[in-house]
Amino acid sequence: MTGVSRRRVLGLSGAGLAAGAAAGAGVQRAVSAGRDGPPAEIPFHGAHQAGIVTPVQDRLHFAAFDVVTESRARLVRTLQEWTAAAAAMTAGRPVGGGAVGGPPVAPPDDTGEALGLPASRLTLTIGFGPSLFGRRHLGLAARRPPALADLPRFPGDRLDPARSGGDIAVQACADDPQVAVHAVRNLARLGFGTVAVRWSQLGFGKTSSTTPQAQTPRNLFGFKDGTANIPGTATALLDRHVWAAAGDGAPWMAGGSYLVVRRIRMHIETWDRTSLQEQEEIIGRDKAEGAPAGRARERDEVVLGRMRPDAHVRLAHPGGNGGARILRRGFSFTDGTDGLGRLDAGLFFIAFQRDPRTGFVPIQRSLAPDRLNEYIQHVGSGVYACPPGVGPGGYWGEGLFA
Amino acid sequence: MTGVSRRRVLGLSGAGLAAGAAAGAGVQRAVSAGRDGPPAEIPFHGAHQAGIVTPVQDRLHFAAFDVVTESRARLVRTLQEWTAAAAAMTAGRPVGGGAVGGPPVAPPDDTGEALGLPASRLTLTIGFGPSLFGRRHLGLAARRPPALADLPRFPGDRLDPARSGGDIAVQACADDPQVAVHAVRNLARLGFGTVAVRWSQLGFGKTSSTTPQAQTPRNLFGFKDGTANIPGTATALLDRHVWAAAGDGAPWMAGGSYLVVRRIRMHIETWDRTSLQEQEEIIGRDKAEGAPAGRARERDEVVLGRMRPDAHVRLAHPGGNGGARILRRGFSFTDGTDGLGRLDAGLFFIAFQRDPRTGFVPIQRSLAPDRLNEYIQHVGSGVYACPPGVGPGGYWGEGLFA
Repeated sequence: MTGVSRRRVLGLSGAGLAAGAAAGAGVQRAVSAGRDGPPAEIPFHGAHQAGIVTPVQDRLHFAAFDVVTESRARLVRTLQEWTAAAAAMTAGRPVGGGAVGGPPVAPPDDTGEALGLPASRLTLTIGFGPSLFGRRHLGLAARRPPALADLPRFPGDRLDPARSGGDIAVQACADDPQVAVHAVRNLARLGFGTVAVRWSQLGFGKTSSTTPQAQTPRNLFGFKDGTANIPGTATALLDRHVWAAAGDGAPWMAGGSYLVVRRIRMHIETWDRTSLQEQEEIIGRDKAEGAPAGRARERDEVVLGRMRPDAHVRLAHPGGNGGARILRRGFSFTDGTDGLGRLDAGLFFIAFQRDPRTGFVPIQRSLAPDRLNEYIQHVGSGVYACPPGVGPGGYWGEGLFA
Repeated sequence: MTGVSRRRVLGLSGAGLAAGAAAGAGVQRAVSAGRDGPPAEIPFHGAHQAGIVTPVQDRLHFAAFDVVTESRARLVRTLQEWTAAAAAMTAGRPVGGGAVGGPPVAPPDDTGEALGLPASRLTLTIGFGPSLFGRRHLGLAARRPPALADLPRFPGDRLDPARSGGDIAVQACADDPQVAVHAVRNLARLGFGTVAVRWSQLGFGKTSSTTPQAQTPRNLFGFKDGTANIPGTATALLDRHVWAAAGDGAPWMAGGSYLVVRRIRMHIETWDRTSLQEQEEIIGRDKAEGAPAGRARERDEVVLGRMRPDAHVRLAHPGGNGGARILRRGFSFTDGTDGLGRLDAGLFFIAFQRDPRTGFVPIQRSLAPDRLNEYIQHVGSGVYACPPGVGPGGYWGEGLFA
């Protein structure tokens, strides 16, 4: 019998309870003082889900699940278990609460690879895809929000069904990828028999900031990205462009938001052979500073007339698309190499909005003449209704299933 | 014309040279005070290559290249360009030295996505695979080290040729994945026409430590890994087990080391349904503390007789395999999902040794009865001769091509 098993047996045997509890507390202390310094915990409970206006973390693990049960009650039970697990993990605690929890004759409550790591600003954000509402046995068809419309086909789309859609999506963001991967894995484990992973995506570097003071990150084209993003603190803009309201057609979504994800492959080898001047004209910003064309500094106001009519920044700008705005929090990805020896790299685009029909869709339509399209291709896609936040005792999606 | 181009044109126009230099210095300052605090630069030049005994960084981008030229001179030129680029990037500077370097009518010298980021302890470590010595036009056959033998086939191997081998390997490690990915991408770009990426692998979490004081990381089975690794500071052990010597059969490899990589898929869904007790017996350590079976603390000496004969730690222990030792610095990986909805996750095993024939090979052979084999599968493999370090003015592999 090994050390910890012995300790656990001692802990379970009456007189040893205090010793067992002390050992557990030791692990908790380790969690609180992990290798990356003081823990940074993002509150799980609240009016809105965390992971939307939360300052963008460093790493992403996104997973889309399909429901594999016909039992609505079983799905609800899984969502309740997920909610409890998410509350624990986002607080830096293992699933189940204990060290490696549970009796030695059973699988551990937690898979263990995040033991000793701090919460790392982990957020878990859930969304429900259109296909969930089409599963007859679940009886959700009448509750599908009008804003959760299927995305139209855009010119140039080359979507892989194996990297698109899904009944349920979970966005896990953390400053430590091991913490984000641990979270998705444990949700998949808890959901065994109820849901199965349809596809997943790791992101290694954020490409948008929601905190205006922070240094703007660079995407894999080497340009600063997200300079003009909606700040996570701009309450009026968020109410107008990001949060769904009770009168929007699906009262259970009030305080929620709609998530659009796009796996955008970047042809970086071609881009890397393009001249600096052409790169800057295509984007509409200079590369070193990030200043809009014809201006000196990154935060200088964009003057649309000073950039080419087909510059990316101009086409994506609210002044060029009828006023549509979205909150972006995308990540760069690199998934090895394709069959032609090119890096399979790009941008995993993530945007939250009040209604994709007046957010992502018109913006993406206005990008049709974008010369950047020669260097990118949309290969995966998803749209999901992310319900409002959960209060203590509540569970993810309770308004939908109530 | 955009801001930076204007500045650059000014800089090139005689009177504006000082202004241009100042702008460049500004970018350098940004590099030195990046978002992760003070820069941590690992010296590139030295007797040994960095990235072997260097304390293991947080993230990995490993790339294997095939040579696509028949010109030995062209390959040498690429290795020289790579060496200069590696020296710049590991010092936190962009390739070419300038901000986004070069004239606006040419592609930038550097792809730019690491501008403003600190060096992040980037190391770049090169190795030459057996297939390089088989390329007739390069005339290297007689210089193949005896220690660079092809690895034998091991029971249970299911190696994918698309994730194995390669003429040249580059291990990029850094605390920021964007820095590691940037480095591999820029080497691939510089090597265009000379080498092509054969395969690559990202690792998100280190699974071995080479610094005995540090907290031992956990692998995706949730266990601490690498407790008994060779410390990067144990000079005598390194000379005996890690560094090749002049008398080993290939004088150009003196001060170098041999690298074995294995992509080890972990069947984590199956593992997660295994009882804690069985997990601990299979590994030979307890899960929470990492103590060897029958002992109390992680660093307590392993007593082979107190664990099962087929426990992983016992079989891998020098006392159980005839004294073989290797320096491990592997990383966990997660590459999305396989066709069956399982996470494509595991361990990218990395080991350095003086001679794989007396290092990895006997250790892996001794692991044949390991019950862990029910939960893992080796799906990729590579062995490479990593030459000694480079002095100022030298280049990667100069001893081989001299």
